[in-house]
Formats: sequence, structure tokens, C-alpha cells
Amino acid sequence: MDRWSEFRKLKQEGGSIKNKIDLNCDMGESFGAYKLGLDEEAVKYISSANIACGFHAGDPQVIARTVDLAAGQGVALGAHPSYPDLMGFGRRSMEATPAEIKNYVIYQTGALSAFALSRGVRLQHVKPHGALYNTAAVNIKVARAIAQAIYSVDPDLIFLVLANSEMEKAARETGLRYAREVFADRHYNSDGTLLSRSHPESVIKDSVEVSERLIEIITTGRIKAFDGASFPVAADSVCLHGDTPGAVEHMRCLRKSLKAAGIEVKPMRELV
Amino acid sequence: MDRWSEFRKLKQEGGSIKNKIDLNCDMGESFGAYKLGLDEEAVKYISSANIACGFHAGDPQVIARTVDLAAGQGVALGAHPSYPDLMGFGRRSMEATPAEIKNYVIYQTGALSAFALSRGVRLQHVKPHGALYNTAAVNIKVARAIAQAIYSVDPDLIFLVLANSEMEKAARETGLRYAREVFADRHYNSDGTLLSRSHPESVIKDSVEVSERLIEIITTGRIKAFDGASFPVAADSVCLHGDTPGAVEHMRCLRKSLKAAGIEVKPMRELV
Amino acid sequence: MDRWSEFRKLKQEGGSIKNKIDLNCDMGESFGAYKLGLDEEAVKYISSANIACGFHAGDPQVIARTVDLAAGQGVALGAHPSYPDLMGFGRRSMEATPAEIKNYVIYQTGALSAFALSRGVRLQHVKPHGALYNTAAVNIKVARAIAQAIYSVDPDLIFLVLANSEMEKAARETGLRYAREVFADRHYNSDGTLLSRSHPESVIKDSVEVSERLIEIITTGRIKAFDGASFPVAADSVCLHGDTPGAVEHMRCLRKSLKAAGIEVKPMRELV
Amino acid sequence: MDRWSEFRKLKQEGGSIKNKIDLNCDMGESFGAYKLGLDEEAVKYISSANIACGFHAGDPQVIARTVDLAAGQGVALGAHPSYPDLMGFGRRSMEATPAEIKNYVIYQTGALSAFALSRGVRLQHVKPHGALYNTAAVNIKVARAIAQAIYSVDPDLIFLVLANSEMEKAARETGLRYAREVFADRHYNSDGTLLSRSHPESVIKDSVEVSERLIEIITTGRIKAFDGASFPVAADSVCLHGDTPGAVEHMRCLRKSLKAAGIEVKPMRELV
Repeated sequence: MDRWSEFRKLKQEGGSIKNKIDLNCDMGESFGAYKLGLDEEAVKYISSANIACGFHAGDPQVIARTVDLAAGQGVALGAHPSYPDLMGFGRRSMEATPAEIKNYVIYQTGALSAFALSRGVRLQHVKPHGALYNTAAVNIKVARAIAQAIYSVDPDLIFLVLANSEMEKAARETGLRYAREVFADRHYNSDGTLLSRSHPESVIKDSVEVSERLIEIITTGRIKAFDGASFPVAADSVCLHGDTPGAVEHMRCLRKSLKAAGIEVKPMRELV
Repeated sequence: MDRWSEFRKLKQEGGSIKNKIDLNCDMGESFGAYKLGLDEEAVKYISSANIACGFHAGDPQVIARTVDLAAGQGVALGAHPSYPDLMGFGRRSMEATPAEIKNYVIYQTGALSAFALSRGVRLQHVKPHGALYNTAAVNIKVARAIAQAIYSVDPDLIFLVLANSEMEKAARETGLRYAREVFADRHYNSDGTLLSRSHPESVIKDSVEVSERLIEIITTGRIKAFDGASFPVAADSVCLHGDTPGAVEHMRCLRKSLKAAGIEVKPMRELV
Repeated sequence: MDRWSEFRKLKQEGGSIKNKIDLNCDMGESFGAYKLGLDEEAVKYISSANIACGFHAGDPQVIARTVDLAAGQGVALGAHPSYPDLMGFGRRSMEATPAEIKNYVIYQTGALSAFALSRGVRLQHVKPHGALYNTAAVNIKVARAIAQAIYSVDPDLIFLVLANSEMEKAARETGLRYAREVFADRHYNSDGTLLSRSHPESVIKDSVEVSERLIEIITTGRIKAFDGASFPVAADSVCLHGDTPGAVEHMRCLRKSLKAAGIEVKPMRELV
Repeated sequence: MDRWSEFRKLKQEGGSIKNKIDLNCDMGESFGAYKLGLDEEAVKYISSANIACGFHAGDPQVIARTVDLAAGQGVALGAHPSYPDLMGFGRRSMEATPAEIKNYVIYQTGALSAFALSRGVRLQHVKPHGALYNTAAVNIKVARAIAQAIYSVDPDLIFLVLANSEMEKAARETGLRYAREVFADRHYNSDGTLLSRSHPESVIKDSVEVSERLIEIITTGRIKAFDGASFPVAADSVCLHGDTPGAVEHMRCLRKSLKAAGIEVKPMRELV
């Protein structure tokens, strides 16, 4: 089944037009003496936190603090596993086998899950980080390894996937719950992939434009690609960035616009 | 309460003379291309495996293989957390705070637990490794940090402690299940601590002597110290070494002697 | 020889009253995606840079950038080796043997030296970091291990030591060049050790006070301890902090005051 | 210039038929409590040691012991740098930039060099390890990054390259001394690349066959490829494996055969 017939199928399912959305954000990406991200601010605007698990960021103290912070605000907890590459912040692809990746994800999901349990909370979801996310989006073997890892640890966990990607396919195959993620501050190609970051206009910086774009995606079930064409998408969750200039301003504007548009913000477990 | 009144209390509880024992052994201490230990052999003789969690040994592939090996033989699974010191194999003490240690134990226990769950098994116990074990045996703050970490992740987990140590005290304080470990191949001081490894006769090498010593400990509820005095002990589990010369011969001899003496080998969860 | 007879000997050597001083500062303590310190600013005010070598901070890219930055400003380069503890930023003591420490220092000094050589510069000095510095200040075996490591790699390297400490003694024993460091923004005890950071007044925060204190130390060859007594000191170098609030303001004020007092700032290799 | 015109050029240079050869072997690939390789045996048969630098194997204690062992036997010392991947033993390709690779090589070469200097010896050569070697053999950008790193640290160092590879080209471009390595126990394709390890006959296991093959390569200046064709090669050094079954037997046989054939074994610095 090609990408477009997948899209058509999604469209027919009619699940794409919504009045609820999850807002997810990477958190806990500090390490030891190093501080990264605006977690204390970002946590106020999101419904789901993707928490680094130690392989690209996040030592056990940072994880503990971040779980306390997110759980204290009622934000749902997710694991954010990565390739083992602290030096490269998990942004570099590695020639790891699906079996290795599966075990990396089990390990990191388990570590994060234990911190959640120690606070009386259950982990909601798993979202791969950086190069692992990018690889899994286009490589079905890697996507399957991740889906199987998640399912084997806890079949109730949600796999947070790039909408319309190999991850989405792998989640369905595995019988795993999944939530489809879109990026409101990034331009897309018309085949549903993201416009490369090397393109000067790949990132949308204006808060109002990002907000309007998100509401259009949610309410129409379509994304307008950079070349003008549009394609269907079923957005369950939007990825917010917590470490860029203007991040907090973006978030504030987004929440305000969503409220005005009558779109509720809910953790993904209430949506999928 | 001093050490001896603790001993007297144990004695009064009358729990010390047994006809069952758990045999535990460190496993999964390989890493990447490096192989350590005789896991494939050792696993046949033991009832509980302490599996390295990545901080002193045991990368995710090694953990997966070891969990498969142990679970496949019906051996109960335990986490074997350590200070973060791969270079020193977790044998070097580190100036970590109780809060840091607590989070190290949550992290590692969670990681191991996920591999157990992914095979449909529940983790049975946690035993600290190397320098962390030695510190926790004499430092109540460290012992408590470990006990609280274990309890917070899963109150049904068993803390495998050095009998009569601060770990045992911390487990009781925390309301955590615990199993008391003795060493049949090590000499003790009369205060219940182990004779230093720097002493030429600290380790008992003869398989028959080790076996007889263990049976005496189990059936009398007392250990004869190196200076001739004896002290009470309630042994739930014996630590076997899987990486020393003659390790497998020791294990074979021990199992034979225990059988002859009518002492059953059972995982600690059936004993405590 | 006790600490005070050492002091008297220093006094007799008459080397303590100076009109030149080296200003040293820790640099290159970022790692991967993590940024720490105000290197770009600090480098303008100092004469010697202590550059992290990868064990507590400073991956190879960070080292390369920092060496370029410091060499580009004509600042002399030093290695800043640590215990292997990225998670704890090298601030936690570890039970490492002198032989292990010696090899850690050879390794890190060599790594840093290669970056210096690759820019056509020779390494000037070595200053241990954090817990390794603190241990070496009071433990002659650790101090000797470091001195021997430095000497074995290059006998022309300078060991940057806490004035009047075991490091100074070890450098003399080894026949290694050394520079004596003082802290102008810290209070001392009358035995020459630093007032514990746990004391509320251990750190002096006012820029003018720090500057005046430094000039008094340099021009009198004595430090006034917190209890009012004073003791002799031969200061070759002052440690500046590049990562604290007001760090740059301190540095600017210090340079101005030194100039006004007719004290030249020179890299330590021109002083010892 | 295509691969074959390179070959023709080599042939015209007429440097390919020799009566001397260097035997190199990877060493020091233990780590902490883990032992790998038969260094104590292998060191007796080789003239150049490639010593792991800590990124895929070899902590500072292991490096110190290995340098002592090799220098004590008069074996020339080389650095064996890798991608930072202890978990994967440096055998996995990573998406590192040439700038990152350059700095990884400077760092590791410097660390190894310091251990050599501390024993009064100068480093002879640098040979990349595992995935870094394989990538550099076919990727000129990576090969150049390594060559420039080596040259920048010490222009007298020799780059040990796969004969006829992009590494050889990069060394020439950089003006760096290089030695060309062949594998006597591996089959080649007729384009000069190695027959994939996945091929059942890729590795030659018979000691006599390996020895005869090596002598043929040295004395004819040609390698017979697996498909029967042959191509020119200028062999300066042969890679011996120190961690395979029969490794020592291979080495013994090789030395005996070389002696019988009148071919001297010399460290590469005497050949190039």
C-alpha cells in the first residue's frame, strides 16, 4: 500500500476532524550540571511530556525532578528514548540493528516507567528522540522494533508517532495504541514528510501563524504543504518546542487561540 | 539498638533454623563485545539471578540475553544496581548522596523490570552491587535510600540484604520484604561482618568445606566466626560466585550436599 | 615538616612579594548540546585557561573550540583533568587508587596537549578539577600521582597547585615546575585551607572587596584568615570563576585594580 | 583519477615488491574488569601495535599496561582511534561529521601519545578502528579528516591505511607518511576491496595458506582476488588478528614462513 492510499484510508475513516488535541513537549533534557530547556515554564502549557531517559540526556536526578514537575502539574508522562549518544544529543544516526534498538527502547522505557510508578503514576506514552525518531519515520524495521519494545513492556502504552509515517504503520501492525503527531511550526512536503531543516523557510517563527496553522490542521484534517498542495492528516498531538527562542510565547499564543477556537487540550490517552 | 541486641532479637524470633534456602548469583555482567562470567553454566544451579543493569556492567543486549537465559531455566529475576562506574566495575566507592543513590536504584530497577515484564515475568528482588552493597551494609542512610527506592517502584519486591547489616535494618524500617544473604565461602568476624579480603584466609576455596559450612549455617542458625566465636544468623539466601576458578564445581558440590542434607533450594520469594 | 614550617620556609625564600600575577579560569566546560560558562567573555580577562578534558566536561568538539578561542586571544593553555564522572561534573570524590589517578591524568593531559599541538601551541600547565583538586590538596599520595603523571608526559609542564597544599609539596618532591594558586573571592582558615563552602560567608561577592583582597595578597605575601590571623603565601596565580553571577564584572574590576596598583598580568610560565 | 589508474600509478612507482614487512595487531582492547585479546602472546610476534584509546575499548589503566607490554618488547606503538561507541565496540557506523571525526582522532591520538611519551617512546602510527576504518576506506571526506588530524598532532606520525583505499589517497594529499596495509587472511574482490565478511569464504583459516598468501603478496606485489583476477598492491604492513581462535598459531607459522622466505619483519617506520 503506497503512502497515498494510506492517506485515503485515513480520510475514509473520518477520524481526522477533531475538537480536541494533545500538546506534547520534550522535557528533562538537562544532564548533571548542565541545564537545557525551559521545563518550568513549558510544563504549564502542555498536556503530555516526553521525558529524556539517560541515553541522549537526562540523568536519574534530572528524570526524578522532571517527573515530579510534570506529575505535579497533572501533565501525562512519556518516555523519550534515544540512541546511546550523549555526546551527539541523540541527533546522529547509528548503525544499530532492530534487535539492539528494541532493547534500547525496553531499557529506557523501563527506567522512566519506574520513576512514574514511584510517584504513583503510570507512563502514558513513548516517543523516540532525534535520530531514532527520524529513522523510525522512514524505516519500517526500526519502527517495528520500537513498537514491539513498547508493546512488550506494557500493551497499554501509546506510541507517539509522526502522522502518516512508518511508525504509524508499525503501531497498527503491532496492535499498539498510537497517537499521530503533527508539527505546526514546520513546513511539510506534499508527500507528508517534513521540509528539510536546511531549507531557509522550514521553520515557522511567528506565533500567530503557527497557531492559525494548527487550528486549520485540526479543524480541516488537512495540512497545506509548502508547494501549495494539501494532504489529509489525523492529528492527535502537536509537538511544541521548549528550548527555542520565543518558545514560551508560542505556547501561550497557541493555548489562547485553541481556547478561542473551542478546541480542548487533553492528554493523548483521552483522544486515542 | 546495638548489633548484638539485634542478633538476640533475631534469635528470639526463632526464624533462623530452616530447611530451605535460596541460591543467588550475579549474572549478566558482560558488556558489548566483552564476556564475563559463566552464566550458561551457573544458571543451572541457582534459584535467583542478580542481573547487572548497565551501570557497572550489562548493556541492553546483555540484559535481554540474560533475562531470556534465567527465565528460560525458571530462575527468579533480580536487579543488581550499582554506582555509575563501568570503568571500575562498580567496585569503587563514590561520594554520591542518598538522593542520588535512590534515583540510581529506581532507574536501574525500572530498566531491569521492563525486560522481565517483556518476557511476562515479574522482577523478584533487588541486590546492590559491589561498592554500593558494601557501603549500604554499614551506612544506614545509603541503605535507606536503596530500600525506599525499591519500595517506591514496587512494594512487592524483595530487598536482598547482607544478614545483620544496616540494609536489613533499613528494609524493616521501610516495611519492605527482605531476604538475608550469607556467604558460605567467606570467613566472618565475630561481629557479623566479613573478614577482609586482604586477609590471606578470607576466602574458602574447598568445595566440600564450603558445602558443609553452608549446611551448618542453615541447620544451626549460627555462623562460626574466624576467631572461633559464633553468632546467630537467619539465612534466606546464599551468594554463589559465577566468575571464579572452580565456581561451577562449587555449585555442583553444593547442590549435591544440600540434597543429601534434605534442604530444598527455592527462590527467595517462597521463603520470605 | 609541618604546615607552618613549610610556610616559614616559603617566607625565607622571599619569593612571596610580587608585582606580577597570573589569572587562571576554568574553560571549555560545555559538552555536546550543553553550554556552560561565559568562555567568550572570560577569555578576555585571563592569562591562563584550564580546559576540561572530557572526563567531567568537554567533548572533543568543545575542546577544539576552546583551544581556538584561548589560543586566539593569546591565553596560555592548561589541561583540567578530573575523575571520570560526567554525571557528577567531577565534583564527587571517588575511591580511585593513585595508579588509576596517574593514568587518568596522563590520558587527559595527552588529549588536551594534542589539541594545543594541532594549533602550533605547547600546553603550559595542568590543574586538577573539582573533587580531584580537593583530594590532591590534602592527600599526598594523590598529589604525587598527579605530579608524576604530569612530569612523565612533559617535564616542562607547570603543575598549578593550591598554595601551601600537599600538591605544592608533591610538585617539589617530583622536581616539577609549579605555580601556587590563591582564591581572592574565598575566605581562608588560619591553617591555610579554604573556609568550607557550607559557611554562609565563605564566598566574597563584592567585586571591589575581591580586588582589594587580591592586591593585598600579592603585595604583602600574606592572606588574612577569616578568624583575623594571617599567614604567608606566595601567590603566582589567582583562580577566577567564569560561571557565577557577576563573574565578568569581577574580572573587569580586577583587571582595572591590578593595573592601577602597577601589577602586571602574565601567564604563569613567565612567573615560575 | 579512478581506482585502476591509481593502481597503475602504484605499479609504475615500482615500490611494490619488497623483502621487508611490518606485522601489525590490535592490542589493549580490554576495559576495566573485562579482558579481550591475547596481548601477552601476540606481542611476541608483531612489530607494530595498534592500541585502543578509550572510545571503543581501552581505559587508561589498560592503555598503561599495554604500552608497557609493547614497549617492553620493542614493538612500535600506534594509536587505534574509534567512534565513541563502547557499547558497540566501535563496529557501528555513526553519522559523525568530518569535523567531529577530526577532533575524535586528535583527542585519542593525544591520549595515546602521552602514555608513549611517559615511557620515553614516540608514537609511530595511527590506524582507525572498526567502523571508522571501514568508512574512511571508502569516504574521502572521512579519510581526509583523519589524515589532517594526524598531521596536525605530529607530521612525523604514519597513517596506517588500507592499501589502495581513500585513506591512502587522503594521506598523499595531506603530505602525511603512510603505510599500506593488506590482509593475508581475507579474500579480496578484484577492485581491491575486501570480500564481505558475510561471504562464507571471506576469512582464510589455514595458517599455512595464510602464510603462503602473504609471501606471494609481498614478493609479487600483487593480490589474487577471489574471482581469480589479480591486482597490484604495495604492502608495507600486514594486519594480524589477536583475538581469534588459532591466532597465535597463525602468527607463529607466519613468522617461520617469512624467515624461511628471507623476508625481514620491521616496524613500519623503517619501511616508509
